[in-house]
Amino acid sequence: MAATLKDVALAAGVSIKTVSNVINDYEHIRPDTKQRVMDAISDLGYSPNLSARSLRSGRTGVIGLAVPELSLSYFAELADSTIKAAERRGLKVLIEQTGGDRSRELEILSGPRLQMTDGLLFSPLGMSNEDAEYLNVNFPLVLLGERIFGGPTDHVTMSNVESAQAATAHLLSRGRRRIAVIGAHEGEVIGSAGLRLRGYRQALEEAGVPFDPRLLGYTTLWHRSNGATSMREMLASGVEFDAVFGLNDTLALGAMRVMQEAGRRIPEDVAVIGFDDLDEGRYSLPTLSTIDPGRDEIADTAVRVLQERISGSAGDVPPREFEARFQVIERESSAPSP
Amino acid sequence: MAATLKDVALAAGVSIKTVSNVINDYEHIRPDTKQRVMDAISDLGYSPNLSARSLRSGRTGVIGLAVPELSLSYFAELADSTIKAAERRGLKVLIEQTGGDRSRELEILSGPRLQMTDGLLFSPLGMSNEDAEYLNVNFPLVLLGERIFGGPTDHVTMSNVESAQAATAHLLSRGRRRIAVIGAHEGEVIGSAGLRLRGYRQALEEAGVPFDPRLLGYTTLWHRSNGATSMREMLASGVEFDAVFGLNDTLALGAMRVMQEAGRRIPEDVAVIGFDDLDEGRYSLPTLSTIDPGRDEIADTAVRVLQERISGSAGDVPPREFEARFQVIERESSAPSP
Repeated sequence: MAATLKDVALAAGVSIKTVSNVINDYEHIRPDTKQRVMDAISDLGYSPNLSARSLRSGRTGVIGLAVPELSLSYFAELADSTIKAAERRGLKVLIEQTGGDRSRELEILSGPRLQMTDGLLFSPLGMSNEDAEYLNVNFPLVLLGERIFGGPTDHVTMSNVESAQAATAHLLSRGRRRIAVIGAHEGEVIGSAGLRLRGYRQALEEAGVPFDPRLLGYTTLWHRSNGATSMREMLASGVEFDAVFGLNDTLALGAMRVMQEAGRRIPEDVAVIGFDDLDEGRYSLPTLSTIDPGRDEIADTAVRVLQERISGSAGDVPPREFEARFQVIERESSAPSP
Repeated sequence: MAATLKDVALAAGVSIKTVSNVINDYEHIRPDTKQRVMDAISDLGYSPNLSARSLRSGRTGVIGLAVPELSLSYFAELADSTIKAAERRGLKVLIEQTGGDRSRELEILSGPRLQMTDGLLFSPLGMSNEDAEYLNVNFPLVLLGERIFGGPTDHVTMSNVESAQAATAHLLSRGRRRIAVIGAHEGEVIGSAGLRLRGYRQALEEAGVPFDPRLLGYTTLWHRSNGATSMREMLASGVEFDAVFGLNDTLALGAMRVMQEAGRRIPEDVAVIGFDDLDEGRYSLPTLSTIDPGRDEIADTAVRVLQERISGSAGDVPPREFEARFQVIERESSAPSP
């Protein structure tokens, strides 16, 4: 049988009113009380009665999440993290896929289906910084990703430059000097590719290693197949390299497979690092070193901040920017040479 | 600029009225005309104005898709295929994640957020055949998956038994006789595990190979980590095997990695086949043989059938069952021994 508000109150040792306050994210609740209630909600699998709540508050208890494509594993795992973070706060998530297409992203910002949701977590890919004004909407919105900075809404992002710098520094620490990049985007300054490339160049500069543009592998998308194609081109070009930085894990995995077919040993001949910490890289051969970009923290922060904006508990604070903590995960693909 | 109804009509060489009829799925449209309009919609990225449509028809142009978990790659790729199939028919998809939890699945069948959608594609994991009556809802619903058969709604499914039989027969054709199964569920008769195991046993029986219960690796879930753990147990048990049938690709990939750590060569010592044809298996080392279960066909059929039920064009036909065509995909992990 489904757990009730009363069950949660009993389990947390608080009043029903307190549980209700936590769910509706009112202020002035002691952190440990809040935690006890959250834990009880999670343990009991309690799910607020949406109709009743909607009637009471004019809210639906449902938030939207708009992402480019769930077949890009990063977004599938982000969606999963977001749904779990929302659940801990008694919220449901409806997911919409934009294909990374600018016009569809703009459509979502004005779409009628927003009546169904209390707010939106929005991860654009086609829109750019010039489109920032379109984020000025009349409903709670939290921006995710690296396409737009300094916009009119709260924004949760990765530490792209710093973590890419750390990934590159990790390869340099293994004695590698010719570090190829897979996934660069021509002329991009911001966006994931632009920012990560900036981190790469900063790390080279700090180490006094010259930048060689021939080591940049361009791809339009970031699927495994793009990583494979880009690596094939790089091998055909004859340029020498002893390491690869895949700007995401799937690019690195696609590239790794092509190098193995070509007889390059990983990590002996070529050390490899990716970015995203996908589950997949824990089981590949070799396992894939990567950047953990703090996906759970991103999801958790985004849901919390959106809920603050929905409930009004954030007051009139101006748009905030949150950057998740990252971590270099060392695995077999960049193990030290014996 | 977004394409209009008029752009689509021009591109397809038909009247605006005809485009509108196709979008609203009226009957009596010639198949080739319909195809031309669909192609034009797809080429131009035309997206019907949902508000206008909703006002006219009382419909939202949005369908729901409820799946267990997007972090299970199969469901991420199914969601992607479904969104693309829906797009070709001018529909949007809202995704809900159930965690494969029965009570949440039941909640979705009675949830208030169904007001937002015209119908639901429903892929349960926690519900079982005894719950079939709950599918008797007052909105259009199409069932996906293998948990419930003979229910009160249209149902689109894989050919589980036949394709698992073909996967096993493929390993037998490579001269393997000791075929381990990773991902079995204790006592399950239907459900993906139960049906695929039935196909496995039928193939053994046909080939006159005795069934050995020690070759069954049980797992609760079907993530990579479950495949790895199950394979570790099997290796520790000392039972001999020369092939592995992973009941899905992620199980096979997790198991493959553990075998490689233990020094088993794939396919020389152990031939491996999975199930699902995930993109990931095209880039693993070795590439993974698998069953293509017809995911695009499943998605396309499900959306088409749901649209028929929404528009009423299916009339009063009783619940139908659709089984997608499958294919054995031979890759390196089960290549013939030289």
